Amino acid sequence: MIALAEGSGGIGERLYRGLTKAILEGRFAAGDRLPSTRGLAAELGISRNTVNAAYARLEAEGYALIEASSGARVAEGARLPAVDNSLAPLPASVGFPSRRFDLIDFKSGLPETSGFPAARWLSALSAVLQSAPPAVFGYGRPEGRPELREAISKYVGRYRGARCSPDQVLVTAGTTQAISVVALALLGPGRRSAVVEEPLTADIKTILAQAGAAIHPSPVDEQGLDPSMLPRRPRPALVYVTPSHQFPLGSAMPIQRRIALLEYARSTGAYVVEDDYDSEFRYEGPPLPSMQGLDPERVVYIGTFSKTLSPALRIGYIILPLALVGEARKRKWLSDIHNPVIDQLALARFMEEGQYASHISRMKKLYRHRRELLAASLEEESRAAGIGLEILGASAGIHLCARFPGKRLTRQDLLALEAAGAKAYPVAAHALSPGAWEDALILGFGSLGDDELRRGAGIVVQVMANAGKKKGRSSSREPARPA
Amino acid sequence: MIALAEGSGGIGERLYRGLTKAILEGRFAAGDRLPSTRGLAAELGISRNTVNAAYARLEAEGYALIEASSGARVAEGARLPAVDNSLAPLPASVGFPSRRFDLIDFKSGLPETSGFPAARWLSALSAVLQSAPPAVFGYGRPEGRPELREAISKYVGRYRGARCSPDQVLVTAGTTQAISVVALALLGPGRRSAVVEEPLTADIKTILAQAGAAIHPSPVDEQGLDPSMLPRRPRPALVYVTPSHQFPLGSAMPIQRRIALLEYARSTGAYVVEDDYDSEFRYEGPPLPSMQGLDPERVVYIGTFSKTLSPALRIGYIILPLALVGEARKRKWLSDIHNPVIDQLALARFMEEGQYASHISRMKKLYRHRRELLAASLEEESRAAGIGLEILGASAGIHLCARFPGKRLTRQDLLALEAAGAKAYPVAAHALSPGAWEDALILGFGSLGDDELRRGAGIVVQVMANAGKKKGRSSSREPARPA
Repeated sequence: MIALAEGSGGIGERLYRGLTKAILEGRFAAGDRLPSTRGLAAELGISRNTVNAAYARLEAEGYALIEASSGARVAEGARLPAVDNSLAPLPASVGFPSRRFDLIDFKSGLPETSGFPAARWLSALSAVLQSAPPAVFGYGRPEGRPELREAISKYVGRYRGARCSPDQVLVTAGTTQAISVVALALLGPGRRSAVVEEPLTADIKTILAQAGAAIHPSPVDEQGLDPSMLPRRPRPALVYVTPSHQFPLGSAMPIQRRIALLEYARSTGAYVVEDDYDSEFRYEGPPLPSMQGLDPERVVYIGTFSKTLSPALRIGYIILPLALVGEARKRKWLSDIHNPVIDQLALARFMEEGQYASHISRMKKLYRHRRELLAASLEEESRAAGIGLEILGASAGIHLCARFPGKRLTRQDLLALEAAGAKAYPVAAHALSPGAWEDALILGFGSLGDDELRRGAGIVVQVMANAGKKKGRSSSREPARPA
Repeated sequence: MIALAEGSGGIGERLYRGLTKAILEGRFAAGDRLPSTRGLAAELGISRNTVNAAYARLEAEGYALIEASSGARVAEGARLPAVDNSLAPLPASVGFPSRRFDLIDFKSGLPETSGFPAARWLSALSAVLQSAPPAVFGYGRPEGRPELREAISKYVGRYRGARCSPDQVLVTAGTTQAISVVALALLGPGRRSAVVEEPLTADIKTILAQAGAAIHPSPVDEQGLDPSMLPRRPRPALVYVTPSHQFPLGSAMPIQRRIALLEYARSTGAYVVEDDYDSEFRYEGPPLPSMQGLDPERVVYIGTFSKTLSPALRIGYIILPLALVGEARKRKWLSDIHNPVIDQLALARFMEEGQYASHISRMKKLYRHRRELLAASLEEESRAAGIGLEILGASAGIHLCARFPGKRLTRQDLLALEAAGAKAYPVAAHALSPGAWEDALILGFGSLGDDELRRGAGIVVQVMANAGKKKGRSSSREPARPA
């Protein structure tokens, strides 16, 4: 009636599991006497001490009552009606799709992973681990390590025209968490509205909505968000923008719109949330200075190391107006206490030694080459195919946006693209308004080699050449406005 | 009128900043002509090419219009009315208090940081970085690396009596994020209620509330949560429990209450959220098996490496019922995409090589010694002082709970404690009901050395001996129930 349970563990552990199983399944009822320790030891061929220890454990956990006179009895309430607990496989529908390596995948936002300086990173980790005092391995503070905040504030001051002290820097687990922390810090009972650019990646809308925001999309054109279209009522808690390099269109906001947006923010009490996700990579002229530098108390700046160094590190940061520092630290604390500490110290060292700046400069050369190659290949192929092509946005970042004037992308075209060996992403999928941007594709080039870029451009143009024509709509240069 | 800006950067960058500053501040109005490139170059003693490049940048960003005939003019809308943007210091009230090293701080939940195996951890990181394929440095999947999920599922199967496949494991940034992910996955329009243990640390209530839960506290006694007190209406989305070692009281739930809680969960459709934060450290008999093993489809199990290895790593995990895997992965994705990858691979290696298990066994010896020393010192001191003492809960974890029957802790007593050189934490601060647990202190011992424990116990007992008496309330063994 009692057997040692199968599986790992010593005899005592397996006996305990065998006994609890028998009791839980009701093979002994409440009040039933368990076998004598001597009898059970003999039956199973194990030592009596082992049985005694298992019975003592049953007593301690409430399965049994032991009396010197009458031995062990099963306690009340130790039976658990069975359910089918066999381990089923996970349904195939659960889970994120894997990247298909048989396709030339123009997914945006993917940096070149073979560029990660693994040996230098290991040196930085090694220096940290060999010199860190024990307190480094304990709990830290939500805003992150002072060494890294110091390095970040210097970096954004020097390269992004930002103005801040290390106190205003909050280290985050990348941009996703940064947006969520900022939204939770800014949204309040009377302020639920978040203005976002339209089109904009769906994930960011979902993150804002999860934090409790009511999303108000505002249209983007070739100069980015248009502040004259912003709502007066309700007053938003925040306006989320990508002014250096709009995602997905690639527009850069000129100074007039930046100023108009800041004036809007000042007059409505809203904060501008500036997502500066890939501004380091600008191939014509120097990067545009951040909006944060224009008004440090109205702009919340979000930066990331995901595009410049590696998304696998999961490190980003927020530069906060002083008035928001306390609330943002609290939200970070409630989110995950703080970022992993060893990585923060390694990154601080990597930046202080100038390795970060020189890594960016290496990667920038590579990405400039890839962008030029992709743009040239697209132009060459579309000339040959006799179709129109317009490459949108600034010469920057690790994706570009290609428009095929007069064309109208359908689901069938995208499937045809995959069948031909390439995957590209329609701008329209990011737009809330149906019909907008239906002639435009997002093409990420950060992680693709020369041959893939050339072949991929050929496939894209061929499929677009066969795509249907736009109906009842002029193929004007102006982007469609949401209805 | 135009000067090079101060600060970092080359001459061109400083000229650009000087020019934009002059325009933003309105020293040039819209339509005003900027100095000729030749004149400005001569005035500042710099090359004309530098001035040309700066003017081209002004044009590209919208500050100026350049015509071959008339030179550069300031564009409309490039003036930004000034605000006081000088960098103020952060108010002293912002920020989390620092740990005071002049005090013997009995803060709970702090492991011994000098125990962190830094050299072994570096070896694991080094092995990972020297062998990782480039894809490791790209984006990963929300559930975490398969290597680590495999190692965790083996570990919880072997040491915690849990039953799961690696598919059911989700790697998180510690317990805080785990609770938030679980709450967001479980709460729905018709299910907003979360039952929690009372008393319970305030942070966990805040995390649940931030995810949108209505908190329903349910009292704990010396056998943990009492399922007979659970609410029938509204049906909760989840019941949060710490059955191996209740925080803060240290109770362990006997099998009867575990079963009653599972039956409650089955009949109401609620999930049991089992926070197993420090169950590895149990000093009398083997650790209690997890509740997850009793019903893998009703229990969400949360584990952490913060207490066993280091909180600075920020790694924890959730074992999910199959039905919740998809939703939890989505919530993790929206929280921070995934955990840092290199650490996950290093930890998988550390576990697979058996180093994790032997590290726990080393630390367990140390913590057992510290617990025994603290308990013995408290007993000795209170005998000498002639006051009562009761140490609550199982012999486990890295904190204990001390009751001084008949005493009533006031704010003055806590200040007297600090003045005498020690800091301890009243259980009452974690209780929602006023008056409950006012004779009890939480004493964390994980990070304190022998001398600190001995001296700290002396200080605590001395101050308690002088503390006021409980009023109008018997000093019974039974814990006070919330009103």
